[in-house]
Amino acid sequence: MATSNRTRFDTIAIVGVGLIGGSIGLAVRQRQIARRVIGVGRRAASLGQARRRGAIDCGTTRLASGVADAELTIFCTPVHLIAEQAREAATHCPADAVLSDAGSTKRRIVERLDGAMPRGVRFVGAHPLAGSENRGVSEARADLFVGRVCVVTPTERTGAREAETVSGFWRSLGSRVLTMSPEAHDQALAHTSHLPHLAAAALAVALPEKYHEVVATGFRDTTRIAASDPELWTAIFIENAGPLLDALASYEGTLHKFRRALESRDARKLLQLWNQSCSKRQRLAGDDGRRRE
Amino acid sequence: MATSNRTRFDTIAIVGVGLIGGSIGLAVRQRQIARRVIGVGRRAASLGQARRRGAIDCGTTRLASGVADAELTIFCTPVHLIAEQAREAATHCPADAVLSDAGSTKRRIVERLDGAMPRGVRFVGAHPLAGSENRGVSEARADLFVGRVCVVTPTERTGAREAETVSGFWRSLGSRVLTMSPEAHDQALAHTSHLPHLAAAALAVALPEKYHEVVATGFRDTTRIAASDPELWTAIFIENAGPLLDALASYEGTLHKFRRALESRDARKLLQLWNQSCSKRQRLAGDDGRRRE
Repeated sequence: MATSNRTRFDTIAIVGVGLIGGSIGLAVRQRQIARRVIGVGRRAASLGQARRRGAIDCGTTRLASGVADAELTIFCTPVHLIAEQAREAATHCPADAVLSDAGSTKRRIVERLDGAMPRGVRFVGAHPLAGSENRGVSEARADLFVGRVCVVTPTERTGAREAETVSGFWRSLGSRVLTMSPEAHDQALAHTSHLPHLAAAALAVALPEKYHEVVATGFRDTTRIAASDPELWTAIFIENAGPLLDALASYEGTLHKFRRALESRDARKLLQLWNQSCSKRQRLAGDDGRRRE
Repeated sequence: MATSNRTRFDTIAIVGVGLIGGSIGLAVRQRQIARRVIGVGRRAASLGQARRRGAIDCGTTRLASGVADAELTIFCTPVHLIAEQAREAATHCPADAVLSDAGSTKRRIVERLDGAMPRGVRFVGAHPLAGSENRGVSEARADLFVGRVCVVTPTERTGAREAETVSGFWRSLGSRVLTMSPEAHDQALAHTSHLPHLAAAALAVALPEKYHEVVATGFRDTTRIAASDPELWTAIFIENAGPLLDALASYEGTLHKFRRALESRDARKLLQLWNQSCSKRQRLAGDDGRRRE
């Protein structure tokens, strides 16, 4: 990681100090990207835990005071809360401050905020492709974003300065930044993230209890993300329902091909589908989720 | 692992020395469960590799000579080949020898062999719930079966002696043995293994190429087993098509519940489904696929 990539800030605020927010805080402090990291949360106890873990310098339950000095505020809260919180923050943060987020959906959030901010404040959407089914600041890791993609979603109303503030910030945490429109992001992530979550959750729901004893590694891997936070994922599904329904239709169509081949005991067709599956899966980069660059 | 659990053999034959057969060989030799392990394979080169890895004492491409002295022969070949190979082996192995397998399906294999053997030779089906999308003896591990379930599927024609030979053998490798009928095994595994393979393969097939760049950990985990051996899994799907179609219907029904909730933007219903998914997934034992006993 080149030192020249580092963006220096005086104060950064993180709203929602869980797995993602906590990992951002740890990384910013470890890499000395800001002089001070303020955590904003609902519960004083969680903020105390985040402080003890070294993820923030200080914490507050009041958004207005938390963002008062922050040149950059990052919302790491559930996607259905981000737009409203950002609107409120915009009236309390410094003029010309940049607001961003780490939400898994982008179109509806950006639509509600783009160009709608007072006093030169700007919102630029972002989504780091990292995380896990684990939750809370106790699971946070300073290297969570290293080598991972972060999608940044400027629009035609976004200025070069704020786009670079957010992109540079993510590069300074070790991420590889991809720029996409909010709509393109949501369509892509419907296929690469939201659909696999739906498919995994449906597998877990459909499993009869009596078979738990003969569950092996394959089932566990395939359903790992079925243990993801229900409220978080309900919000993501609602925010991105349209593109997710399209991705689901494509998935159901593929399942139907398998069904037809099974019904007619068509080994040749099954082999063809399995060959496609195997070669497509093998073309994806390394199994640990980090791209080899 | 209690030493008293060990079953001692003079000669064991392993037909098909890949990941599973190679791991059996490594474990048997490391735990000194047999004086001699004979590998039977199609290619001399693979047998040489297995010998160099320490998975077998010697190898042959001829089934008849490989099983000639073996009190226990284990078929680790694709499921559609096992019955025919076992029938051939039965005419060459010692009288009263026990034949078994490690196949992922049981009903059709057992049906074809149960009570159909000459000279007191007996077949008892078995299925160790271990393995991975990796292949070949190079991936074999002596501890692959430690702490894992092995399902043994005797029938009313199976005698106590041969049932215990096979169950004791798997316990001596560190496995926990469950006894089920071949039919019950196939119904259970359709849900816990074959359906997740189908679901993962369909996700991989359905992923548009253009989205590869924004694939993250969730997709990778959920589709890890989509890189499984196409010929092996085509054979498993054909052998167990009936129960797999039932499991697929149940899965499609659950996907349909998600679809309806998404179409009506019904957050309450989605949250209920996600809560089910999360609590069911969390009730499964440890993430590494080994049961804490």
